[in-house]
Amino acid sequence: MGPTICCCVILIFMINISGTSSSSMIVIGHRGASGYLPEHTLPAKALAYGQGADYLEQDVVLSKDNVPIVIHDIHLDEISNVASKYPARYRSDGRYYAIDFTLAEIKTLRASERFNHQTGKPIYPNRFPFNQSAFHLVTFEEELEFIAGLNKANIDNNREVGIYVEIKEPSFHKNESRSNFSEIVIDILRKHNYTKRADKVFLQCFDLEELQRIRVQLKSDLKLVGLLSDENHRSIYNKNDFSYWTSEIGIEDMSTFVDGIGPHYSDLYEQGTTLKPSKLFNDARKHNLFIHPYTFRSDANLQPFATFDVMLEFYIDKLKVDGLFTDHPDKVVRYIEFKHKQSNTGIKLQSFSLVLIISSIAVISL
Amino acid sequence: MGPTICCCVILIFMINISGTSSSSMIVIGHRGASGYLPEHTLPAKALAYGQGADYLEQDVVLSKDNVPIVIHDIHLDEISNVASKYPARYRSDGRYYAIDFTLAEIKTLRASERFNHQTGKPIYPNRFPFNQSAFHLVTFEEELEFIAGLNKANIDNNREVGIYVEIKEPSFHKNESRSNFSEIVIDILRKHNYTKRADKVFLQCFDLEELQRIRVQLKSDLKLVGLLSDENHRSIYNKNDFSYWTSEIGIEDMSTFVDGIGPHYSDLYEQGTTLKPSKLFNDARKHNLFIHPYTFRSDANLQPFATFDVMLEFYIDKLKVDGLFTDHPDKVVRYIEFKHKQSNTGIKLQSFSLVLIISSIAVISL
Repeated sequence: MGPTICCCVILIFMINISGTSSSSMIVIGHRGASGYLPEHTLPAKALAYGQGADYLEQDVVLSKDNVPIVIHDIHLDEISNVASKYPARYRSDGRYYAIDFTLAEIKTLRASERFNHQTGKPIYPNRFPFNQSAFHLVTFEEELEFIAGLNKANIDNNREVGIYVEIKEPSFHKNESRSNFSEIVIDILRKHNYTKRADKVFLQCFDLEELQRIRVQLKSDLKLVGLLSDENHRSIYNKNDFSYWTSEIGIEDMSTFVDGIGPHYSDLYEQGTTLKPSKLFNDARKHNLFIHPYTFRSDANLQPFATFDVMLEFYIDKLKVDGLFTDHPDKVVRYIEFKHKQSNTGIKLQSFSLVLIISSIAVISL
Repeated sequence: MGPTICCCVILIFMINISGTSSSSMIVIGHRGASGYLPEHTLPAKALAYGQGADYLEQDVVLSKDNVPIVIHDIHLDEISNVASKYPARYRSDGRYYAIDFTLAEIKTLRASERFNHQTGKPIYPNRFPFNQSAFHLVTFEEELEFIAGLNKANIDNNREVGIYVEIKEPSFHKNESRSNFSEIVIDILRKHNYTKRADKVFLQCFDLEELQRIRVQLKSDLKLVGLLSDENHRSIYNKNDFSYWTSEIGIEDMSTFVDGIGPHYSDLYEQGTTLKPSKLFNDARKHNLFIHPYTFRSDANLQPFATFDVMLEFYIDKLKVDGLFTDHPDKVVRYIEFKHKQSNTGIKLQSFSLVLIISSIAVISL
């Protein structure tokens, strides 16, 4: 009877420990699943939704007639056929600006995989092929309706995907006499029931002073995210002093009006014999800011990381960031699920060996 | 030492049996992930792709200018705003036909969740909300480019999703002087490198005589699928004798020119004290035809099945169909993955108890 009892004990134990846990880190579909489909198109958002992203990102820019459009740049000429469709409509710098086109005009454009406006060459040649199939730009409201509709249809899956909105270039919009750009975006968010910290929405901006205005003057209760840039990558319109905002005093200052930061991932580590958390990382933690680094692309130069999974391991398991922006949500979701499976198997193995040792001892002593 | 050795043996054994197997049954995204997004739009196809469908379905109908369009019906008035956009363009039966509109006209339409053209009410009120966001109809070639592009961008994921094309209503098209409809579709397939049985493509039709013509006269080497209907659900244009084609002699006849059948799922069982395979099912198996039943919808009346998972269990685990059409690919994929996990756990438990018994006996005899 001894061995049989032991078997039963162990089997019952195994059955009880087979539940899985889920990660609290959020996966943000960067411009949708833009590693696979043209950025900021509805198919790219649908794909990210299907791949298991927790949040979908919207970059917002105004059209000539003040309609917020979902597009990464203030220019139209690197993700659409605007230059061939409206050849005369460029500015003195040769660029085509969204703000010079009405929504009706923007709706006539064909959207495409991102390319260099000077060479015409795609930025990521191994991604979705250039100028294939049929893609369109959408308004901010069309995308909010899209996500709300998907969430409604997913109620029985207990799935509610959030939105992660970026107000693009407030200074540029101000120069174009649209100093109420943020107000327009926040009004639309309110109309769609995104009003407070508890809602599944983040509002991000590289312009920290604009975020401060949104919190203090506009009295917004949304979760605000301070995007951080270095001097080499800042936009020409953004006059923020990032050497200040990334200093400890800047982070402390920022923590009075933002809830988290969105730094480039390379600003979160310092290289020594091993990678260790940067001062920026530690300062943000000290001032209780969540950390959502950008942008995790499996097909980019990953240095100093050997592989994408090694990179994810560093940020997810070592730094334990609170979320991350990725062009490849499927790979991040798969990494998290694999890690959990491993960790669950680990628990099972440990529990098993413990029970086994105890029961074996019991058998011997019988 | 005895117990320790046993532990080691068992742990090593466990590690070696932890691999997972994958099902050979294919999940076909029925009009895309149409349970969540408006059918046959690119976002619905992208979602199905992200959810893990193996094949995406295209229903094909010709436009006035002979361009194959991806749409389920020969009518436009239950999935678009054609009646408000072109109010005078109906036929004597009050319906708006795709074949009366040029591609350029069809491209001006707004696509939507399916609704009843007489009442204006959505067919599935709990799905994506009616007339929200921005959806478009696409050509067959645009969709083929879309899927090829997604497959290209997914090369490092080792993912290649196939296509499942239906030639809609050949008799209707013939009445409209388009007797070369199938030739047009097959030419486009050839242009996109879908030419033979080994390619990831199925060609389906409810018109068995047309399939016979495609195999015998057009000498197509594609995998052909005979869709089966009963008298109550047949199209008014389809003059095929389904009582013949669903008989054993009909199935045997069909097996000379098709590779598989696509029956309604309810035609695959007979009700007694328990459900058992129908004669149609057994006849198809006898004549080596694969079986891809339609349509698995978690939000439809599932009678006689208690739940969607019970339904899936019957078709996937009991009948072992070769594939199935579903509006909810995520739920079918999840079911298959869950079953595999269960089955792997089962193997582990069995192996464990065996090893445990042996080792316990060994311990006792030490």
